[in-house]
Amino acid sequence: MSLDSLFKPKSIALIGAAHTEEKLGGVILKNLLKFKGSVYPVNPNYGEMMGLKSYPSARDIPEPVDLAIIMRPAAEVPEILRELAGRTKSVIIASSGFAEIGENELQDEVVKTGKEIGVRILGPNCIGIYNPSHRLDTFFLPDERLKRPKKGNVAVVSQSGAILSCLLGALETSNTGVSKAIGYGNAIDINEADIYEYLAKDRNTGVVISYIESLGDGRKFIEKAKILSEKKPLLILKAGKGVSGQAAAFSHTGRLAGKYEVFHSILRQFGIREVDDFDMLIDAAKALAYYPSVSPLAKGGIKGGGNRVLIITNGGGSGVLAADECMRQGLEAAKLPEDKVEKLKRIFPHFYGINNPLDLTAQVKDEDYVTALNELRDDYDGFLVIALSNVLGITERLPEMIKACRANINKPVVSHIAQSGISKKLTVLLEKAKIPVYPSPEKAVRALKALLSI
Amino acid sequence: MSLDSLFKPKSIALIGAAHTEEKLGGVILKNLLKFKGSVYPVNPNYGEMMGLKSYPSARDIPEPVDLAIIMRPAAEVPEILRELAGRTKSVIIASSGFAEIGENELQDEVVKTGKEIGVRILGPNCIGIYNPSHRLDTFFLPDERLKRPKKGNVAVVSQSGAILSCLLGALETSNTGVSKAIGYGNAIDINEADIYEYLAKDRNTGVVISYIESLGDGRKFIEKAKILSEKKPLLILKAGKGVSGQAAAFSHTGRLAGKYEVFHSILRQFGIREVDDFDMLIDAAKALAYYPSVSPLAKGGIKGGGNRVLIITNGGGSGVLAADECMRQGLEAAKLPEDKVEKLKRIFPHFYGINNPLDLTAQVKDEDYVTALNELRDDYDGFLVIALSNVLGITERLPEMIKACRANINKPVVSHIAQSGISKKLTVLLEKAKIPVYPSPEKAVRALKALLSI
Repeated sequence: MSLDSLFKPKSIALIGAAHTEEKLGGVILKNLLKFKGSVYPVNPNYGEMMGLKSYPSARDIPEPVDLAIIMRPAAEVPEILRELAGRTKSVIIASSGFAEIGENELQDEVVKTGKEIGVRILGPNCIGIYNPSHRLDTFFLPDERLKRPKKGNVAVVSQSGAILSCLLGALETSNTGVSKAIGYGNAIDINEADIYEYLAKDRNTGVVISYIESLGDGRKFIEKAKILSEKKPLLILKAGKGVSGQAAAFSHTGRLAGKYEVFHSILRQFGIREVDDFDMLIDAAKALAYYPSVSPLAKGGIKGGGNRVLIITNGGGSGVLAADECMRQGLEAAKLPEDKVEKLKRIFPHFYGINNPLDLTAQVKDEDYVTALNELRDDYDGFLVIALSNVLGITERLPEMIKACRANINKPVVSHIAQSGISKKLTVLLEKAKIPVYPSPEKAVRALKALLSI
Repeated sequence: MSLDSLFKPKSIALIGAAHTEEKLGGVILKNLLKFKGSVYPVNPNYGEMMGLKSYPSARDIPEPVDLAIIMRPAAEVPEILRELAGRTKSVIIASSGFAEIGENELQDEVVKTGKEIGVRILGPNCIGIYNPSHRLDTFFLPDERLKRPKKGNVAVVSQSGAILSCLLGALETSNTGVSKAIGYGNAIDINEADIYEYLAKDRNTGVVISYIESLGDGRKFIEKAKILSEKKPLLILKAGKGVSGQAAAFSHTGRLAGKYEVFHSILRQFGIREVDDFDMLIDAAKALAYYPSVSPLAKGGIKGGGNRVLIITNGGGSGVLAADECMRQGLEAAKLPEDKVEKLKRIFPHFYGINNPLDLTAQVKDEDYVTALNELRDDYDGFLVIALSNVLGITERLPEMIKACRANINKPVVSHIAQSGISKKLTVLLEKAKIPVYPSPEKAVRALKALLSI
């Protein structure tokens, strides 16, 4: 069964709705007010909540819905599911209190009941779904506690709701938009593999990032991850790499984390990409959001692959740090071709460093970057533009100029701008010109690595 | 000769002063207007600049000064130095155009002239000095291009002016204050070793971070770095670790970078601490700024050392990521003592995860952190408090409560708060309560590592 009823419902029932945001059921209801379809709050104590007619029980919902959200104590969930029989296609069980705290029997009963009534279930112990293009937001987090990222092309898949919210916060801060965000919790029915299958076909999604603590069905996971990876970049962050982490992951979602080394080597074997930590996941996701078509199957898009990087900088030291990180990441800051060295020496002042890194020094002018990019665009696989904005030769004209020459470069370009006075404005302008910007040389190189290691 | 005339001058001459900020000599003059002592601008074309009486040449300065700053074309510098004979104790040569672009003879002449007239020289090709407690700012960067960090205890030493400005921008962004910032460029006289010697005795400096591309006198560097390290935490970021980076470092300052492996193993041998990249330098500097007295020689301060870390979290996944990073960093997220497990199980709700990470779940209340810290303060060497602020149980009371129990914990405590709605406010409050805050679990663990690996 397609997960459309979950991701793009036309109608929603909320069992456990509340009239106030002081209760989680009220937070969800508030977030559902933005939804364009029908919303049916269920709560026996109110006839109306937040301006919507309310219903005493799930049985009283006036029409079958696509999606029912349950936010009631765990013990009530099986009975609520039975009441929903024939009344919904899919269910999000937001409530916690199941296997993650040792209540395995209760969770088993939920599994069984879900099968009996023939619905797809997300959760339990999950935060649910955010789908901005459908105005769907089932999170029990108010907007002032978690500012949602803008609409974009990154799908965020997370077993943990807490990590999902951390990822969304970091993406929002780094100005990266999302297509969908899914927290799937204990995954008694819908798991990461089902979600990958759905996202592989989702036209709004260009990149998928996935936080995993444990796997239910390893074989299915590999199969779906591979299919997805062949269509779109998929980046996995696996938690529970050590003994204490594995123990913690178990108590957190009630699924065994498994031996990390096994997981790691299987991913490697199937060409599925993994990142080491939270910050690298965010940095890589941002880069891929700008260049989703670096996927191997993409036709006519930006060319990924190759490992030769050109570093163009106006700060010698920043160029050196970037070159060091290239070495660590297996990228090659390859020498300039001899003929280009001769040509650039004629064009540029004698004190510019005509090497790789290409050092335009503090005497730089905006147009020097364009000259360098145009001359060397065919000689490298990826480009790092370092524009330290504290020198006077860097102006707000730079982004527009890079944008213009960018059109002739069919390869990834990323930028590093240090945090200083006018850097915020320059960053906004460069990102509007479709160049992702990073606050350190090393982060920018790691982003290039994510784009080139396809 | 002490470097006091350089760091704490009573009077300054600026040769190459300009009347407008469109020229670098004007930017410096503007920055010197905040200085409390006498300032004598030198420029033959003006009788007055920015409200200060101006002098035609260095010979016309009305009294001997402590510090002369030269911002004139490289070729003029030897003659200017001769004019300064007997008129200054120290000189900052901000001008570039020396060995870094192959003008070795000119640089040699400057070295010789400096010795003849008996002055200490910082530079050439350097950005100079920022000493907020003395209101001294010789940078040729306007404040709107580089917002200066607040006054604090971190001294920033950098061969490269560009990297110095990047470091200052990043420290400012991370709310970390500085005691002194020094860019020493080509280092023909004063080099990193002289500066370490000075900072070892500087009472305003509690921590030193140092960006190095190349060394002049390796033996002296080791000697002074060792002395400094024994008094205060010293963190070194060495650029030019690979072949292309080393070539770039050479063209940038005209000093050979040397084989990195040799440098690395010598530092290790002498117990001098190195970090891998820019972000780790900033994160560690911030941690040490809060806990400068983790130095081995410090008496009665915070106890550093040991590698047992307790992770207290309200987000299971964040705790797992932190535990993974502990493993990578050689820190031990050691089990809770059995008796404490029993006790905490009686105190906390049954669904809390009484392990390490200690998972307070989304049902957390502020006071749970205090309970955990008080119960376990004697069982670990360092503490990581993860407070994901998107759940309603985390309030603005938390920082004050942690501050109160903090007083009884004589060991490092750091915090991770994810980027979201109220996180900025919470971060400000926690940092006022003297707990450094980081935006990812892994960064927070690396900060703890910097505090424990003393």
